[in-house]
Amino acid sequence: MVAGLLAKRMNAMKASEIREILKITQRPEVISFAGGLPAPELFPLEEMKHVAELVLNESGRKALQYSTTEGFEPLREQIARRMNGKFGTQVSCENILITSGSQQALDFSGKLFLDEGDIILCESPTYLAAISAFKAYQPQFIEVPTDENGMIMADLEEMIKKHRIKFIYVIPDFQNPTGRTWSLERRKQLIEVANRYEIPVIEDNPYGELRFEGAILPAIKSFDQKGLVVFVSTFSKTFCPGLRIGWIAADSHFIEKYVLIKQGADLHTSSISQREIAKYLELYDFEAHIRKIIQVYRNRRNAIVDAMQAHFPSDLVFTRPQGGLFTWVELPKTMKAVELLHHAIQQEVAFVPGDSFFPNRIVENTFRLNYSNMPDERIYEGIQRLAKVIRQYGG
Amino acid sequence: MVAGLLAKRMNAMKASEIREILKITQRPEVISFAGGLPAPELFPLEEMKHVAELVLNESGRKALQYSTTEGFEPLREQIARRMNGKFGTQVSCENILITSGSQQALDFSGKLFLDEGDIILCESPTYLAAISAFKAYQPQFIEVPTDENGMIMADLEEMIKKHRIKFIYVIPDFQNPTGRTWSLERRKQLIEVANRYEIPVIEDNPYGELRFEGAILPAIKSFDQKGLVVFVSTFSKTFCPGLRIGWIAADSHFIEKYVLIKQGADLHTSSISQREIAKYLELYDFEAHIRKIIQVYRNRRNAIVDAMQAHFPSDLVFTRPQGGLFTWVELPKTMKAVELLHHAIQQEVAFVPGDSFFPNRIVENTFRLNYSNMPDERIYEGIQRLAKVIRQYGG
Repeated sequence: MVAGLLAKRMNAMKASEIREILKITQRPEVISFAGGLPAPELFPLEEMKHVAELVLNESGRKALQYSTTEGFEPLREQIARRMNGKFGTQVSCENILITSGSQQALDFSGKLFLDEGDIILCESPTYLAAISAFKAYQPQFIEVPTDENGMIMADLEEMIKKHRIKFIYVIPDFQNPTGRTWSLERRKQLIEVANRYEIPVIEDNPYGELRFEGAILPAIKSFDQKGLVVFVSTFSKTFCPGLRIGWIAADSHFIEKYVLIKQGADLHTSSISQREIAKYLELYDFEAHIRKIIQVYRNRRNAIVDAMQAHFPSDLVFTRPQGGLFTWVELPKTMKAVELLHHAIQQEVAFVPGDSFFPNRIVENTFRLNYSNMPDERIYEGIQRLAKVIRQYGG
Repeated sequence: MVAGLLAKRMNAMKASEIREILKITQRPEVISFAGGLPAPELFPLEEMKHVAELVLNESGRKALQYSTTEGFEPLREQIARRMNGKFGTQVSCENILITSGSQQALDFSGKLFLDEGDIILCESPTYLAAISAFKAYQPQFIEVPTDENGMIMADLEEMIKKHRIKFIYVIPDFQNPTGRTWSLERRKQLIEVANRYEIPVIEDNPYGELRFEGAILPAIKSFDQKGLVVFVSTFSKTFCPGLRIGWIAADSHFIEKYVLIKQGADLHTSSISQREIAKYLELYDFEAHIRKIIQVYRNRRNAIVDAMQAHFPSDLVFTRPQGGLFTWVELPKTMKAVELLHHAIQQEVAFVPGDSFFPNRIVENTFRLNYSNMPDERIYEGIQRLAKVIRQYGG
């Protein structure tokens, strides 16, 4: 009975089998590189206690009441200021809409731009949960061939000439899943192409502040002259994810529409959480906190890269990410990551097979590893277990 | 340029002119019956401070981390238990999905059920923000003639016979905007019809616990044998709206799909807010708190009804609601509420003209008054001002 009652979009929205398999990996004896969780020991818990108390004492009833859809103004101001300082953008408070994490920003982007059958260009591979968010609006995906510097521009332009493209979705910094970062040149080339063909760009940047080495590159949004770029980000990786505070930064012609969408979708994001983060940013040294996270994650990146170099067969290729939470492994073409996962779980180690990150292509020999959520020793131990499985299974 | 880049649905999603007009009414000298805000002096602020501290002390890092899409289990258990006790339902934790307010539950219902052009049956008038939420999915609305006991069943059935109906949307308790409550008989008739034709029912119940007199009537969901009823509610009116905690209660065949939608839309609702409400429910007497709200709102209902009886011209018709936050006024057919509003604002009193609550029909002679958010004296003064405007303008 039920299927006949539902919208057609629900055919595309299926529970992930891998998610079900990975539920097993929540047992503590399993070393799981499968998640994407930030390290909870780095959450500023004591500071959070302090700001939670202050917000309720200073603006209690206001913080508990309905508030504006756009979000708490002092928080939006802080976000604009920080973005401009770090990523070279020129946005102001009016360009910012607070969302329930950056996932909501992705969902709203689908709602704003996509009619059934519309075409999205994305990196290949791309972020799994962006695919899920967009699928609710029944688009088609075209994967643009991507190397270690970003989308390959000749391929991008060829696809734009062939098809009517609704938007281009990219994660230029420490991409999920590959950990790769777009070069400055590619960023400039992308905006040039987007401008020329007047195609909106969704620039998803949840990890950009977590750079382990080298200088932060300007956001694609910083080169945006026609107001085509929608920049989305979040406090989930730099503060904590439990509060669900993210944002959209876009020109007024788009942000006004996003506000209408937000109004219909959930009125506004938690007033109290917004005020808590704003208060934290006002009272504490957020940059020092981020430096602390970077230091820890850099060590964990080093640990996983060292361990992979030491233990993985030499024909495996993997990313040495300059920031963020993930690395990406390519197995020899003959190996299948899903089958490897079943063997790995037997040895109490887990990862996410790469196929879910390709909306169209069938790529069976890749997987994603997360290194942000466990200490170095556990990373070493986990990679050793995994290397053993790969050798056994691959051999 | 912009319009050509957007999805077609955005044509139906327009900023409300009335909302713009009403922005003026936020000046403190204006007595505004236009909002729908709960009384902030009733928010359990001290208790909130206590539970906020406890949650961070007892489960700090967990409360700040990503959590499950379905929501915090102890909260879902409490919700199921309370619903069963108050509204005669038989739901359990597994039937509950926590949402970002009940607005998100409405948006998700559109996403779950509606393809472009699908038909929704709703009361006439119906809730403004439900219309906005559903419009994102480009449905058609058919308004079912509605009297003081709910939808008129003969009309409902006639429409079902004529059209393929995707769902029926109703607010059976102290409806927004009319303040009316469905009779027990109509509730049973509705579920009988829904069962016979296998049509889902969205039962929106944000105010049901705020009954001023008489016994709470069983929810339509309580008569649901085929799992067709989706019950949505919220803590916004009984606890506070700023935390954005609402829920969906539905059979597993629907709730599983809602969980997929939530996953793509924003992963999960704030872990910390969910734990705070759960802790509050564990430690405090929520029923006593609700009795306090009822007492205050009952007095305000009495104040507004008394004032309208004393001062409004006798040819005006209005609801004496048995609960909730709103009353509804019908002017003589020759009068237009939008024009009246312009005059009223000059006299520093405001309301929401009724036309926005009718998705199709043009009904110009009605308006909605909210009485939950101001003391009795201000209600009396406001109604006197409004009565004067009506007499001047109508005379």
